[in-house]
Amino acid sequence: MTGSSHAININQVQGDQQSTCEDYVAVEEPLEIQLSSTTADTAAARSISITMRTPGHDVELALGFLLTEAIISSMDEVSETGHMGTPDPESGFQNIVRVGLEPHVRVDMDRLQRHFYATSSCGVCGKTSIEALRHNGLKSLKNKGATYSRDLIRALPDKLLEQQRLFSQTGGLHAAAVFDDQGEPVIVREDVGRHNALDKVIGALLMRNEVPAHNMGLLVSGRISFELVQKALAAGISTLIAVSAPSSLAISLAEEYGMTLVGFLRGDRFNIYTGMHRIT
Amino acid sequence: MTGSSHAININQVQGDQQSTCEDYVAVEEPLEIQLSSTTADTAAARSISITMRTPGHDVELALGFLLTEAIISSMDEVSETGHMGTPDPESGFQNIVRVGLEPHVRVDMDRLQRHFYATSSCGVCGKTSIEALRHNGLKSLKNKGATYSRDLIRALPDKLLEQQRLFSQTGGLHAAAVFDDQGEPVIVREDVGRHNALDKVIGALLMRNEVPAHNMGLLVSGRISFELVQKALAAGISTLIAVSAPSSLAISLAEEYGMTLVGFLRGDRFNIYTGMHRIT
Repeated sequence: MTGSSHAININQVQGDQQSTCEDYVAVEEPLEIQLSSTTADTAAARSISITMRTPGHDVELALGFLLTEAIISSMDEVSETGHMGTPDPESGFQNIVRVGLEPHVRVDMDRLQRHFYATSSCGVCGKTSIEALRHNGLKSLKNKGATYSRDLIRALPDKLLEQQRLFSQTGGLHAAAVFDDQGEPVIVREDVGRHNALDKVIGALLMRNEVPAHNMGLLVSGRISFELVQKALAAGISTLIAVSAPSSLAISLAEEYGMTLVGFLRGDRFNIYTGMHRIT
Repeated sequence: MTGSSHAININQVQGDQQSTCEDYVAVEEPLEIQLSSTTADTAAARSISITMRTPGHDVELALGFLLTEAIISSMDEVSETGHMGTPDPESGFQNIVRVGLEPHVRVDMDRLQRHFYATSSCGVCGKTSIEALRHNGLKSLKNKGATYSRDLIRALPDKLLEQQRLFSQTGGLHAAAVFDDQGEPVIVREDVGRHNALDKVIGALLMRNEVPAHNMGLLVSGRISFELVQKALAAGISTLIAVSAPSSLAISLAEEYGMTLVGFLRGDRFNIYTGMHRIT
């Protein structure tokens, strides 16, 4: 986690008092994701995304992004991965990850334009956004996945917090964690961007050949949007739990694809929005 | 705010009890932003973005997006705006906004690819991300803007909460508000996406001919990222206050452009990261 938080001087105001002190902030730096035939093939490299992320687990972030955007479906399609360019002289960060794709992988660049939410026949709406994902190859998770007891679910936030070192230092990071059917965290990742934190977790699953991760549950620190559900579905995760609220379209998408969605997990309370059969 | 929240049935778990009840969730639906010469000119219309947003204030969202992406700089460049397409039969939402641009406005589509964080000479890093914004026309706010007392700042969250009707109903929305030099909220907007909430506020300022809004302050409900600072700078807002943490690059960008950045505004405490001279 070196370099993921950064010490600065701030002015702290409390009541009538003002004092200068040192504090830690989460690092945010751009990461460019490039595709090529091999990492050495600079001439063929295409930049497909620049995202603002917290440095660390960059290759996982890139792979998770590629999976959840339906560019790749397994590590069989990846020939190699690596950081490119010279490290920044001040920070030491390398802000380009290049992913080499096997020759048989065809990349549909239009998918990356994020215009797939609309179909020409139906126009732009939530229902077509959900339908478009089916054309992208997203599969239903009905009849898949583990079950979880209420007590197991209520124990998750404390277990996640134990592993969230950066958050406790900076207060400025989102976290995502996959846990097994015993409720034990398997992979925990943090980032200033919540989509990035999830992409890092999914990239790590992919590198372990654990996608589709039907028997894993996912816990996220913030709210649940359509895009977060979409990413979890792309990784085959059947249960998604958040400490905060889901949106209407997140619920519709989870319902449509047979995912269990839990929100507002706080203390001994939580809400089940979809897929109640997985909560025992 | 009709249609911005949605009643659903959920299963609420507390301790050993489980009950079905009605709850409200924030609506999330896609919005397509199109550019054309006039709103009637369908043949010339180009789709430039699809964002997942909470319906309401859609035209403001589109205009704020165009301003903060440096596509337009004032309402003089906009001929007309309007919702397009037939309303969704179930929800009634219209999910396309078309913005007509005056003939003299030239649109640099490359800017919208979000690849402007990188420059060919320096590679990808935080410093070049900041530098690239200068080429986009972003201006320093040094020696601009009002000052605010500590007590005025501490009174802001309660004033914002009074106007956050949707949040209190759904718990699932981000808010952004501009306030005047007396600390009174002028425009408050909510959305499932924090960038959208800010774009809606900035679009509303633009429609009132109040951009650059040098003497306005901005309060946001979440964390402060590079992109949030960039959007506030594009609107000429000199003071940005958040209830949560800023990132490293958000602080660097605010410092570089002379913006006052305040974070962790909670109770009688807050942190000043940059531009201390505006806090009296």
